[in-house]
Amino acid sequence: MENVLGLRCINCNKQLDTKPGIYTCPKCGPKDGILDVEYDYAAINRATTRGLVSNSKDNSIFRYLPFLPVNPGTPRPHLRVGWSPFYKPVGLGRSMGMNDLYIKDDGQNPTASLKDRASVIAVIKAVEENSSTIACSSTGNAASSLAGSAAAMGIKTYIFVPGRAPQGKIAQLLVFGANVISVQGSYEDAFRLSAEAIERWGWYNRNAAINPYLVEGKKTVALEIAEQLNWQAPDWVVLSVGDGCTIAGVWKGFMDLYRAGWIDRLPKVAGVQSTGCSPLVDAFLEDRPWHPAAENTLADSIAVGVPRNPEKALRAVRQSGGTMVAVSDDEILAAMRELGRTSGIFGEPAGVTGLAGLKRLVAQGIVGPDEKVVAIVTGNGLKDVKNAIAAAGEPMKVEPSLGELVLQLEQRGLA
Amino acid sequence: MENVLGLRCINCNKQLDTKPGIYTCPKCGPKDGILDVEYDYAAINRATTRGLVSNSKDNSIFRYLPFLPVNPGTPRPHLRVGWSPFYKPVGLGRSMGMNDLYIKDDGQNPTASLKDRASVIAVIKAVEENSSTIACSSTGNAASSLAGSAAAMGIKTYIFVPGRAPQGKIAQLLVFGANVISVQGSYEDAFRLSAEAIERWGWYNRNAAINPYLVEGKKTVALEIAEQLNWQAPDWVVLSVGDGCTIAGVWKGFMDLYRAGWIDRLPKVAGVQSTGCSPLVDAFLEDRPWHPAAENTLADSIAVGVPRNPEKALRAVRQSGGTMVAVSDDEILAAMRELGRTSGIFGEPAGVTGLAGLKRLVAQGIVGPDEKVVAIVTGNGLKDVKNAIAAAGEPMKVEPSLGELVLQLEQRGLA
Repeated sequence: MENVLGLRCINCNKQLDTKPGIYTCPKCGPKDGILDVEYDYAAINRATTRGLVSNSKDNSIFRYLPFLPVNPGTPRPHLRVGWSPFYKPVGLGRSMGMNDLYIKDDGQNPTASLKDRASVIAVIKAVEENSSTIACSSTGNAASSLAGSAAAMGIKTYIFVPGRAPQGKIAQLLVFGANVISVQGSYEDAFRLSAEAIERWGWYNRNAAINPYLVEGKKTVALEIAEQLNWQAPDWVVLSVGDGCTIAGVWKGFMDLYRAGWIDRLPKVAGVQSTGCSPLVDAFLEDRPWHPAAENTLADSIAVGVPRNPEKALRAVRQSGGTMVAVSDDEILAAMRELGRTSGIFGEPAGVTGLAGLKRLVAQGIVGPDEKVVAIVTGNGLKDVKNAIAAAGEPMKVEPSLGELVLQLEQRGLA
Repeated sequence: MENVLGLRCINCNKQLDTKPGIYTCPKCGPKDGILDVEYDYAAINRATTRGLVSNSKDNSIFRYLPFLPVNPGTPRPHLRVGWSPFYKPVGLGRSMGMNDLYIKDDGQNPTASLKDRASVIAVIKAVEENSSTIACSSTGNAASSLAGSAAAMGIKTYIFVPGRAPQGKIAQLLVFGANVISVQGSYEDAFRLSAEAIERWGWYNRNAAINPYLVEGKKTVALEIAEQLNWQAPDWVVLSVGDGCTIAGVWKGFMDLYRAGWIDRLPKVAGVQSTGCSPLVDAFLEDRPWHPAAENTLADSIAVGVPRNPEKALRAVRQSGGTMVAVSDDEILAAMRELGRTSGIFGEPAGVTGLAGLKRLVAQGIVGPDEKVVAIVTGNGLKDVKNAIAAAGEPMKVEPSLGELVLQLEQRGLA
């Protein structure tokens, strides 16, 4: 990987060589010693250009291969990950009172969430390290995406999910042939048990906070947003925050483009959590260290009481001059309805939490109506049908008779 | 639309002009008088070429605009419909004993099914005819796709689904803000009630068999397959059959390319139904007219006892020199598992029915192991989680303790 200079510890700032088995800083330990991948931007610019990328027919994250920490020759899963749709839904903008609002729909990925971007990198790194088994813990989406990418490469998986993971995500895992361990406890319990098991059996570790390469996969969503805006950063990028890895990835993507000279300014990044589980929002707003929190939100993907990548997440928001905000579960369900009705896009609860937060930020005057804003929808609503029906109600039930239909429509003032 | 010559009745062969409100042959009636859209292939070839299309950056069905029956200037929904992934999953090929097997994954569409291809055309035609309300009946996927495309354009919808439609599809409809009428009866009951309501209130009719433009949307899956094979038809295209519109669309797509001189041979088309509802397979194999059938299959999208486009479907199979086959629900669930485990692709029951049928055709020696075969996955498995879990089992439940995990893995012979 001549594009990669090495790994740098975000705690002690020490630079390390990339080596198999090195995921965290040996000095600072797995909790604090999170690593960042550092690139040789001159090497990237020798390998590719904006023009070459814009003309690429590779409709996946691999259009950005020189920005990724993988050997170009390593076999990859066949799944088409990334290059997700980028929309300017006029009806949604009107409904939100915004004139330049974009949606990046990452529910349109092979396993229907942004996490595919990280999992495909995990699988490639596992292949590079000759691992035949990968493990991770996840609230659900990282799990199903890992299972999908691994199935495509014929790699075995052990997946730890908290007991509350929605049925859609469980179904994906099972169909992809993963060994699914439903941990009867919180996400933190699932994370801890997976760490112990990985230690014991020596499986490849896909836990995103621990494995520095996964943020590199996630950053591709930022590369795409910049390209889809014709190599320009928006004023704001808004998205939900759980473990903190995705927002860290978004910021890393824009930083890499900026350092490579591909964009000439950086966006502000806004991170949104649910009021039922907002350890990072609270830490940011009160300017204090984060404390563990309860996991009381229906947005299961971001119900993370003990975030594993808090520093990278907070750093992303602070360095960008952005902000954080928490929203209620009711606001999340309302955002799901508003997005669906005005634009035909169906996000899962955590997938639309960014949008719910944006609504608040607009109401507070923090985001202006003419600013160029991108809200990332991080996962598809089909993953969590129960909460979608809670958001949108039940259909009207009618016997097969026109008379009865007329009556029911009239009762609802519809016909 | 200078690319369109007119509409031709498949029953009496009469040619009609395209006019608002004309969906079926006035002489033959709405049941038999299904129309076909006829093109001026010279005009298409003046407007575009294979090279221009191959270099198009439009990653949607509109890369084929001159092959579509819409005015180029009509506003379109923003959703990215089509240009779905085309894979050669080596693990699946090995597992099926096939050396040149491809999957066209149409679960990767905005509302997660192939039906988006038709619904986006329906919405455009409704805009061209100044209709502000569209209606349809559907087993579920046409419904949710119509609701999505219509929401993106701010058009009102009335959607009739049979009571049995799976929760995932219902959730999509509700989130997209459709007026959902759950008809307490069969698909046939839902179809009839929608026809009466459309007649009464004058809504735009999206019922695919009746509306000749929708097959034109569906045909784009064939245009993509040919392009993704570098402007070549495969030996076989295999897919599931319900109403008959999709297989008719696939055949229409290859025929249009052939007539335009873009491909130099045609594929054989194989249509697959469930043994629990196989009126068209039975008619084909016994070479007799079709009879209404019961709807006893878990593959809800193709549980169509009274197919609305039988003639176009049977014509597609016969003209192509293809065949039809029925498979059991158990074979459908087995195909779902096999596809998921070997390739990381998750199809709904009807979405993998084509693959289940292909397995039979290979076993019968009708399809050879070296033939170039494309199986279309018509919808995403997340739409029907209940049946996926029926196919793949339940996760193992473990208390958060390594000791218990070791025990459970040992019991299963896993660690």
